Amino acid sequence: MKDLDQMYIPTIDDMLTAHERIKPYIHRTPVLTSSFLNDLTGAELFFKCENFQKAGAFKVRGASNAVFGLSDDMLEKGVASHSSGNHALSLSYAAGRRGIPCTVVMPRTAPQAKKDAVIGYGGRIVECEPSTSSREATFAEVVKETGAEFVHPYNDPRVIAGQGTCSRELTEQVHGLDAVIAPIGGGGMISGTCLTLSNIAPEVKIYAAEPEQADDAYRSLKAGHIIADDAPETVADGLKVPLKELTWHFVSNHVTDILTASEQEIVDAMKLIWKRMKIVMEPSSAVPLATILKNNDTFAGKRVGVIITGGNVDLDNLPWMNS
Amino acid sequence: MKDLDQMYIPTIDDMLTAHERIKPYIHRTPVLTSSFLNDLTGAELFFKCENFQKAGAFKVRGASNAVFGLSDDMLEKGVASHSSGNHALSLSYAAGRRGIPCTVVMPRTAPQAKKDAVIGYGGRIVECEPSTSSREATFAEVVKETGAEFVHPYNDPRVIAGQGTCSRELTEQVHGLDAVIAPIGGGGMISGTCLTLSNIAPEVKIYAAEPEQADDAYRSLKAGHIIADDAPETVADGLKVPLKELTWHFVSNHVTDILTASEQEIVDAMKLIWKRMKIVMEPSSAVPLATILKNNDTFAGKRVGVIITGGNVDLDNLPWMNS
Repeated sequence: MKDLDQMYIPTIDDMLTAHERIKPYIHRTPVLTSSFLNDLTGAELFFKCENFQKAGAFKVRGASNAVFGLSDDMLEKGVASHSSGNHALSLSYAAGRRGIPCTVVMPRTAPQAKKDAVIGYGGRIVECEPSTSSREATFAEVVKETGAEFVHPYNDPRVIAGQGTCSRELTEQVHGLDAVIAPIGGGGMISGTCLTLSNIAPEVKIYAAEPEQADDAYRSLKAGHIIADDAPETVADGLKVPLKELTWHFVSNHVTDILTASEQEIVDAMKLIWKRMKIVMEPSSAVPLATILKNNDTFAGKRVGVIITGGNVDLDNLPWMNS
Repeated sequence: MKDLDQMYIPTIDDMLTAHERIKPYIHRTPVLTSSFLNDLTGAELFFKCENFQKAGAFKVRGASNAVFGLSDDMLEKGVASHSSGNHALSLSYAAGRRGIPCTVVMPRTAPQAKKDAVIGYGGRIVECEPSTSSREATFAEVVKETGAEFVHPYNDPRVIAGQGTCSRELTEQVHGLDAVIAPIGGGGMISGTCLTLSNIAPEVKIYAAEPEQADDAYRSLKAGHIIADDAPETVADGLKVPLKELTWHFVSNHVTDILTASEQEIVDAMKLIWKRMKIVMEPSSAVPLATILKNNDTFAGKRVGVIITGGNVDLDNLPWMNS
């Protein structure tokens, strides 16, 4: 792992530049409310619906910022990354919009629907075995072959600046927020949220929500240094990856607390949102509500922004079908 | 069945009055678009999302108009209806908001989730056997006992005037529509659409969408008189009921065509909307898109309003789980 002092830390100006750059390619997603969930929690919840975002997730913000900020001499070589999830879709979408090549290394076990979506956006998939060593070897091969620019799913200043545009919109759409809560996996969305709010709305508290079964960020915050687990198992499949130095920088400096929820609490919260708000969102996106329901005292009476991070779920394999 | 000349036919002024009356109790629901579905159909589709409506369906418009238009001397006796679906929820919701009694006759076989929702809104359920004779006998008993005002799910001028407010909003939200399409069961939504559009936007064509397996409205329009089937079977469970004289009046005078879709086409369209638009809606609400996909020539190049009628679906029993 690189040290932080080898990396560029994105600034609020980077976020503002990112927002102007990506606006033509993203949705300004709506903020929904639910009187039922407000009654249930005693809080005023404002759901920022990135499940309605292009490519179905917030990740298109960071990916678009990296792709559309690329210098002219890199256009022919394009971009590359490794991801089995929304970053793969988002990078392919953004590269397709700019008309440049995109190669994504995906485990051969990734859901066919995700692979189809990458190809649908014009991306190229190179398959690897579902292990870290195979992924790294395959990715090194791809970069050597293509010379493409690596866009990391979250440990990248361009990506973090892009994700920060989400909470900028949220503060424009909802005034007087007391807190914002978002799920945490690698920490890209939370880092962007920290970048933006610590600068334009420093009075807003930032909470991260994490599955108990993949609580490495929670334990990192308590320990004061990054703890990285190897492939934890959770229904919130977008939240399995560990923090890295750039996201740890933002988390350790600006996050008030990390709250956790059990698998059953996550599935129950997901079903509750589907049922009452009539929106399709991923298990990862349900972790914030699951933790709000457990921590009533923290949120009651507060105006809370809740980031619904994505909506790319396998409709043939919903988690409550297995329980 | 009563003759039409015994019934009051609602006017455009009734719709406008209804809209002012019910505004505090309903959502002005958003209109969503999907570039994917536009590309797929060659049309510009504008989805009016009544799945986000209070009580989860457009029916709350008509029910609220009936409840809040009730004269003072009827308040103590309240309202009553028979319904196993969204009308039961909507009437209970509206009565709860006005603080008056509401009794709904429901078959004992109705989904527990629907019964729970009625009770959650403060309604009272009287159960009957799942047959027309039992329902009618039970309902007559309820009216005799309570003296409550009967609010029919669709064959009621107050209800039709209320449903007409949906397409009024749609024409305010989207300009230059060429057509509007909505599902047809008993015809309440379509009649309200006809009432509104024939007066304020007579250039807009009105299409109704119906399951092939419950195509009594389609056959009625071809025959020139009401054909009522006894309990057809379809996944679009909101669309099993027949037209009645008041809805037939609007359908026969203003509907350009009724288009039909098979069960598989309905389920496929429903899944497509969930997957691409990330919204939870009922099988009935998917029938319009299913028919648009089959009738490309009719809609290509047109600006088409598509009414998503409701979102009250059993998440534990989704139709593609059985196919």
